[in-house]
Amino acid sequence: MSIRVPKGFQLAGVHCGIKQASQTEDLTLLVAEKPAVAAGVYTKNLVHAAPVALDRKRTPSDRIRAVVVNSGNANACTGNRGMRDAREMTRLAAAACGAEEDQALVLSTGIIGEFLPMTKISAGIEAAKSRLGCDAAALVSAARGLMTTDTIHKLAGRVLSLGGQEVLVTGLAKGAAMIGPNMATMLGVILTDAALKPQAAQVALASVVDVSFNCISVDGHTSTNDSVLLLASGAAGSGEPLVGDDLAAFSEALEEVCVELARSIPADGEGATHLITIEVAGCRHPVEAHTIAKTVANSPLVKTAVAGADPNWGRIVSAAGYCGVPFDPAGVSLRVNGFLLYEAGAPVGFDAAAVSDSIRNNHDTLLRLDLGEGDAAGRFWTSDLTADYVRLNADYHT
Amino acid sequence: MSIRVPKGFQLAGVHCGIKQASQTEDLTLLVAEKPAVAAGVYTKNLVHAAPVALDRKRTPSDRIRAVVVNSGNANACTGNRGMRDAREMTRLAAAACGAEEDQALVLSTGIIGEFLPMTKISAGIEAAKSRLGCDAAALVSAARGLMTTDTIHKLAGRVLSLGGQEVLVTGLAKGAAMIGPNMATMLGVILTDAALKPQAAQVALASVVDVSFNCISVDGHTSTNDSVLLLASGAAGSGEPLVGDDLAAFSEALEEVCVELARSIPADGEGATHLITIEVAGCRHPVEAHTIAKTVANSPLVKTAVAGADPNWGRIVSAAGYCGVPFDPAGVSLRVNGFLLYEAGAPVGFDAAAVSDSIRNNHDTLLRLDLGEGDAAGRFWTSDLTADYVRLNADYHT
Repeated sequence: MSIRVPKGFQLAGVHCGIKQASQTEDLTLLVAEKPAVAAGVYTKNLVHAAPVALDRKRTPSDRIRAVVVNSGNANACTGNRGMRDAREMTRLAAAACGAEEDQALVLSTGIIGEFLPMTKISAGIEAAKSRLGCDAAALVSAARGLMTTDTIHKLAGRVLSLGGQEVLVTGLAKGAAMIGPNMATMLGVILTDAALKPQAAQVALASVVDVSFNCISVDGHTSTNDSVLLLASGAAGSGEPLVGDDLAAFSEALEEVCVELARSIPADGEGATHLITIEVAGCRHPVEAHTIAKTVANSPLVKTAVAGADPNWGRIVSAAGYCGVPFDPAGVSLRVNGFLLYEAGAPVGFDAAAVSDSIRNNHDTLLRLDLGEGDAAGRFWTSDLTADYVRLNADYHT
Repeated sequence: MSIRVPKGFQLAGVHCGIKQASQTEDLTLLVAEKPAVAAGVYTKNLVHAAPVALDRKRTPSDRIRAVVVNSGNANACTGNRGMRDAREMTRLAAAACGAEEDQALVLSTGIIGEFLPMTKISAGIEAAKSRLGCDAAALVSAARGLMTTDTIHKLAGRVLSLGGQEVLVTGLAKGAAMIGPNMATMLGVILTDAALKPQAAQVALASVVDVSFNCISVDGHTSTNDSVLLLASGAAGSGEPLVGDDLAAFSEALEEVCVELARSIPADGEGATHLITIEVAGCRHPVEAHTIAKTVANSPLVKTAVAGADPNWGRIVSAAGYCGVPFDPAGVSLRVNGFLLYEAGAPVGFDAAAVSDSIRNNHDTLLRLDLGEGDAAGRFWTSDLTADYVRLNADYHT
């Protein structure tokens, strides 16, 4: 296991009984030994959960000591009692490391519209406090504490050398579909021992989220709880905040970690058999590339075609055509897993069986559209749509 | 059978061999005995089919004599040869009634990217010419000639009395999903014996389409071939174009016919077990109501919840929250099939089993959101999402 906990942090995941299965972690506590810089990016859904409302007020910050995360209950659509419960969770987490209530953040994920079992959560925070650690086992238990319908815990890490000093960037995430039934939303926590100014941390996180967690979908349904936090302990070196080339190098590593975590979510999408990468090139502006890639990613017809290993270029090209971005259809070309299917606005002869085999025999499918209008590009990741996704989401009852 | 062919029109549907099954109509010819007024509304997809490009140039018009429709092949993404084939279809259809090429319109639906079998189509137009009629059997065969994956032909009609004169408004439509595999797009043809000016016909059709065919989805994938035509023979009365109250009464009947046809499409959606109506009230502007209704309609999580008879209000409320329309979540209420599930931004106690039974035991499901912000309202129709939809669209091979 090469992914390590950055200096200055301790963490643990425990089972406290929010979820039924007794072997399953459902609460994670992260503690910074000294006040850490913290930045956050949150769901844009107007209907957002209590922990989102609370954390939004508390970030960016330069004095965060703890983050507590629970899975199994989203604490969303829970009104004033939900806000009180979220604040109480931060008070308990802060108390576990001798800090003030407003030095803690909280993330929740799971079913919507139910109140948190606060007695279990209180006991869970106590239990986690006694198991805090910074080894690989602690890191994995913490990542597992975030999981809902995820089939695998999600970790990514990078090691940099900045000014002769080793710096770690380590991320934990969860996500497999939106909300409710299978109690899933997207959460991410990135830890680093680099030193950052709060505003620099916020800018770096926001710009990286735009090309990572904002470029994925499973079902296109924006959740009430999506949150990504960045915590920087500054314990790696002199404590002087990063600037210039060092800050750029850090941001690059942060992007790599976030992209790796983001991709891992649709790769583990509910019922998914393929991770689909949509690359769109030849656009006049990155926003246009993003819009086209996202529209293709959210077409159920494209997603079912990949599930069926069908090189159905008509569905892909027509999805680009209806997304609202102006382009000349006569300039469009399309490659699927490297095979040229469509060029200069017309289908080309291709070996359908070979393309189909290539889709069927690989977990990753690459759709590459070129619009021939300019130099801007963008990409998006999604999962395919299978009958299992429908079964998972139709067979649940509120 | 109370739906009749308006005066001044004859029509027929025949099998000419575009589709395999020999009992299945795949070509329809409609003839106006005298030059008719024609209006058209077409797909907004940049990647649109040859017949769309051709008809767009020829409507509105006051001299249309024929419309030819084929199913089984969309004549889309077929380049210059596709345009030549579309023109040749109109030449053949016009010749069948002694008219000029540019007095005919053409609609195609079916698989994308293949050239039309013009020999079969030519023979089909000849065969249809010899079977033209205006009885119920002719009307049904014409409606069947439009079908692709539809399980049932789609007809709707209204009878008005305008100035002591009987006026008929009769519509034919098809549609069950987008494109390609199962060869489905949305087509509609509305016939009337009312007299209309071309511009009045175009305005009436465009405004009616906005509240009918533009308010439905099965999979949210806008096709390359969507078209709705309105043909007015003027044979019902004096031939004087309708104005004032008569025109308003006609437009109302046109709206009823188009809404009935539009609803019938998601009701027959691929794999669908429910027609879902989403009504959104209490908005500041109808566009906001439409946006919210459409976003709820296109959420796979909402559609799978209805398929599973799950009164999952969290999915519905959160879909409204992410559509970009600003509103105060604390003012939102939601009813499902009349049951109150959510009020003033918070869940209310409800009998989940009773709501679930109500969804399970009815083909129609009504989701009614009230935002409490104003008086504007809107509605949208969609189908639920079942494993059968995925199977139909994943198991096909290009």
